[in-house]
Amino acid sequence: MSKGLLIVGEDMCAEVVSSADAFTAVEAVFGAMAKGDAYNFPVIREAIGYADALYGFKSGFDKAGKTLGVKSGGYWPGNMDKGLTNHQSTIFLFDPDTGMLEALVGGNYLTAVRTAASSSVSIAHLARKDAKVLGMVGAGHQSTFQLRAAAEQRSFEKVVAWNPHPDMLPRLGAVAEELGLEFEAVTQEELGAQADVIITITSAFEPLLMKDWIKPGTHIACMGTDTKGKQEVDPELLASATVFADEIAQSITIGEAQHAVASGHLSESDITPIGAVINGTHAGRSSDQEITLFDGTGVGLQDLAVASVAAREAESRGKATRIAL
Amino acid sequence: MSKGLLIVGEDMCAEVVSSADAFTAVEAVFGAMAKGDAYNFPVIREAIGYADALYGFKSGFDKAGKTLGVKSGGYWPGNMDKGLTNHQSTIFLFDPDTGMLEALVGGNYLTAVRTAASSSVSIAHLARKDAKVLGMVGAGHQSTFQLRAAAEQRSFEKVVAWNPHPDMLPRLGAVAEELGLEFEAVTQEELGAQADVIITITSAFEPLLMKDWIKPGTHIACMGTDTKGKQEVDPELLASATVFADEIAQSITIGEAQHAVASGHLSESDITPIGAVINGTHAGRSSDQEITLFDGTGVGLQDLAVASVAAREAESRGKATRIAL
Repeated sequence: MSKGLLIVGEDMCAEVVSSADAFTAVEAVFGAMAKGDAYNFPVIREAIGYADALYGFKSGFDKAGKTLGVKSGGYWPGNMDKGLTNHQSTIFLFDPDTGMLEALVGGNYLTAVRTAASSSVSIAHLARKDAKVLGMVGAGHQSTFQLRAAAEQRSFEKVVAWNPHPDMLPRLGAVAEELGLEFEAVTQEELGAQADVIITITSAFEPLLMKDWIKPGTHIACMGTDTKGKQEVDPELLASATVFADEIAQSITIGEAQHAVASGHLSESDITPIGAVINGTHAGRSSDQEITLFDGTGVGLQDLAVASVAAREAESRGKATRIAL
Repeated sequence: MSKGLLIVGEDMCAEVVSSADAFTAVEAVFGAMAKGDAYNFPVIREAIGYADALYGFKSGFDKAGKTLGVKSGGYWPGNMDKGLTNHQSTIFLFDPDTGMLEALVGGNYLTAVRTAASSSVSIAHLARKDAKVLGMVGAGHQSTFQLRAAAEQRSFEKVVAWNPHPDMLPRLGAVAEELGLEFEAVTQEELGAQADVIITITSAFEPLLMKDWIKPGTHIACMGTDTKGKQEVDPELLASATVFADEIAQSITIGEAQHAVASGHLSESDITPIGAVINGTHAGRSSDQEITLFDGTGVGLQDLAVASVAAREAESRGKATRIAL
């Protein structure tokens, strides 16, 4: 018998899913993906020809975690003027044993934390242990989540940041200050010269970081490129780095690696799923001089993993709303 | 401001969406599709490798009806033993102006009525006005919906039926009796000889009706073929008929026309969207001798159209459940 539908709204998600919870869930599902225990279904993404909206679905099944579902939603650029978030997402979880709808979970906060968890997982497994300076390329809403999650993985002392619109940097600086980290607005070249770990989280369509600016031993998490045409770094940087990705199929088609693959700087077989490092089947970083680069494209299974945590936690803390269907 | 999420369960759908309501909604959306005002997004359909389940999504946007959404669900063959329906569907509607989730609507009953409405729309627009005998190929659960909806479109006097498992025919016979129609179980060949309108609604993977068995002037609605490999009628029948479809792209890939196209009996340009007949840009049947064939593959926009009716009717009758998100 169905126990009814579990409803977990946006506020509840923020209350019950911490950055650490998201890290654990995303790390586990990346591992399951690399083992073949979890896979993402094809992504649907449509410009609907109305309200300038992009709408679509990311979905998948994690057999290990018994999580089946879909995140639906998209981008409505006119929402801000209506007092709403431009990105609108809802996650639906289904019982893999019966196909019945189990939970409806708000997806806006969870998308932010699962994206932050992704770069954070890459830092945990690939960055040098002695990393001290974090470079942030991008200072939008999402960048604050990336910064907070990254700060949990290494003993950073300083944040250096660059953004196409410098007036957005103070918000990121305030988060750094809150975390007890020194903050400096720098040029892109200076950022490369100082940073031990770099997170790129922009909507750019051209390289913002050139290969020659990057120090040996740096770990770079490219998190902004999730569509054909977007680009954040020099393809030659991928050629000289050891490249990892959440999902290789997305990495070479809509991720940062699309450009390096198209230009012949990189081939599909040069990319290692981060899950292989998590599972211990790939050693990860091999020296203090190696440049590692993680292409985080964002997969549906990340959304399902954190939504599953939200549903479980809301329920176990007695805060879940259940309705009969 | 959001008015919250509207919940319309299975029982409510059956209460507020009649066969006639479904007809009106499906006819309108087929018309919108043919005008280019509505389109279906790519279908996701995955064998998830667990519980023998098939799971996926059908989605789309109807700009004319301002309906945006997705039907998710699938087929769980072990459900029957648990007292559940093997097919499990839920429909989600989103506000096309903001992307916010508007309604969650049970999809099991609605899938049945929207599929029945599809053949019914084809009968209304393509069958001879003087049709008296309805032939039913298939006698499963869905066939009773097709029969009821078809009976609303012409003054049928008799139903002739065939099913691979003859023991299932009495259930269909009982519905015919309830509708005041004579009922006769016949061979496939006899069915072709008697019927003026034929609906095929099986899970067959081979032709059940041969071209030579079909009378001039017959209208055939092929409703069972919705997957690569499935087949209900002789490809030569499509070659000799005037062929219509809900959506041509699906018709030639996963619909009944897939076989006639593969064998060179038919080309894509031979198929007319039924919406063109609805809109009056195609004349439909041209003579009493013409064989017309409708390939009903089932599109997401049908699901969204009837779900939209369910949400509107439940609300306007004061029977809607609304929850805050």
